[in-house]
Amino acid sequence: MHREGILYIISAPSGAGKTTLCKEVIDIFPNLRHSVSYTTRLPRPGEVHGQDYFFAAPAEFERMIAAGEFAEWAEVHGNCYGTALKTLEEYRKCGVDVILDIDCQGAQQLKERYHGGVYIFILPPSFQELRRRLDCRSADSVEVIERRIQGAAWEIKESRWYDYIIINDVFSKAVEELKSVLIAESCRTGRVLELVAEKFDI
Amino acid sequence: MHREGILYIISAPSGAGKTTLCKEVIDIFPNLRHSVSYTTRLPRPGEVHGQDYFFAAPAEFERMIAAGEFAEWAEVHGNCYGTALKTLEEYRKCGVDVILDIDCQGAQQLKERYHGGVYIFILPPSFQELRRRLDCRSADSVEVIERRIQGAAWEIKESRWYDYIIINDVFSKAVEELKSVLIAESCRTGRVLELVAEKFDI
Repeated sequence: MHREGILYIISAPSGAGKTTLCKEVIDIFPNLRHSVSYTTRLPRPGEVHGQDYFFAAPAEFERMIAAGEFAEWAEVHGNCYGTALKTLEEYRKCGVDVILDIDCQGAQQLKERYHGGVYIFILPPSFQELRRRLDCRSADSVEVIERRIQGAAWEIKESRWYDYIIINDVFSKAVEELKSVLIAESCRTGRVLELVAEKFDI
Repeated sequence: MHREGILYIISAPSGAGKTTLCKEVIDIFPNLRHSVSYTTRLPRPGEVHGQDYFFAAPAEFERMIAAGEFAEWAEVHGNCYGTALKTLEEYRKCGVDVILDIDCQGAQQLKERYHGGVYIFILPPSFQELRRRLDCRSADSVEVIERRIQGAAWEIKESRWYDYIIINDVFSKAVEELKSVLIAESCRTGRVLELVAEKFDI
């Protein structure tokens, strides 16, 4: 028998380095991948249905919401994005570990509707450093940066109900910590006991 | 502020490789050490009080048992060994992480009397491999080995109430897993939230 897949929910304020961190661990663990979401947005050139997103017509998305088929969903700039409970169940049964990279509100919805996820919050080392990182991106206007900082203050409060908090100060240390959480969680008794019982006939 | 020390309780059937694994991680983490126990056994040449053991007269040990000062204690071959609650509290307050390398019965006592410990069980990959390792030690008679295997079967059943199970098949993988548990536990929200609240004024 193989063990069931583990669902990792990762949130962070914008500028904490979440995307780079996730990419790094997905490159390390062959059994770990990004969860594929549903979206009502149209595919961009090169995007593949079932790989980048499951593309759904607005009416179909509405039907799924009404039927309670989403573990979490949200509307962003007029498009809907959501994670189907069915998708998560398929990953779990196939033994595939997945990262779901969502904001605190999505994570909160998920916590209510799905059991067994591991919730990880990535923090910048300080507000000063967060501001510096957002400034460096330079793509954003002062107003946008200010809004992000305000948003971050709200989101950081939410970290208290996550299972783990990783402070992304030195990047290599944060990678090591995220990697360690993934390995440690795969050693949790509840996840290996069935295998142990089979091996040792207990 | 610094974070509080974490107590790791590690148990394993004889031959699982617990001692070597613990030594390995103690060498890696400067803030991690073996817990110092009390014992009624006389010091051997070179053993230092307060470093190898706290050496106590049998009457003093009896008094400590009666006063409920031990988190766990046991009699082994006519000598008593025990871990004082006070010692564990001191480590915790000083922010020192400690490994307590005890059998399942000691661990069970501790679980009842001390909160906040992390329980890790080390397993051999199979009974066959356990027998092979015990045979290789060659120091033990066939009867002793047989008794150890029987004991192991009982102990392995106890693994179900530990927090983590590490199967020591490939040694480097087991080290990586134990190391990961130690790092991941130091990222648990309950352990860093006070620091985060201070940093971000939440």
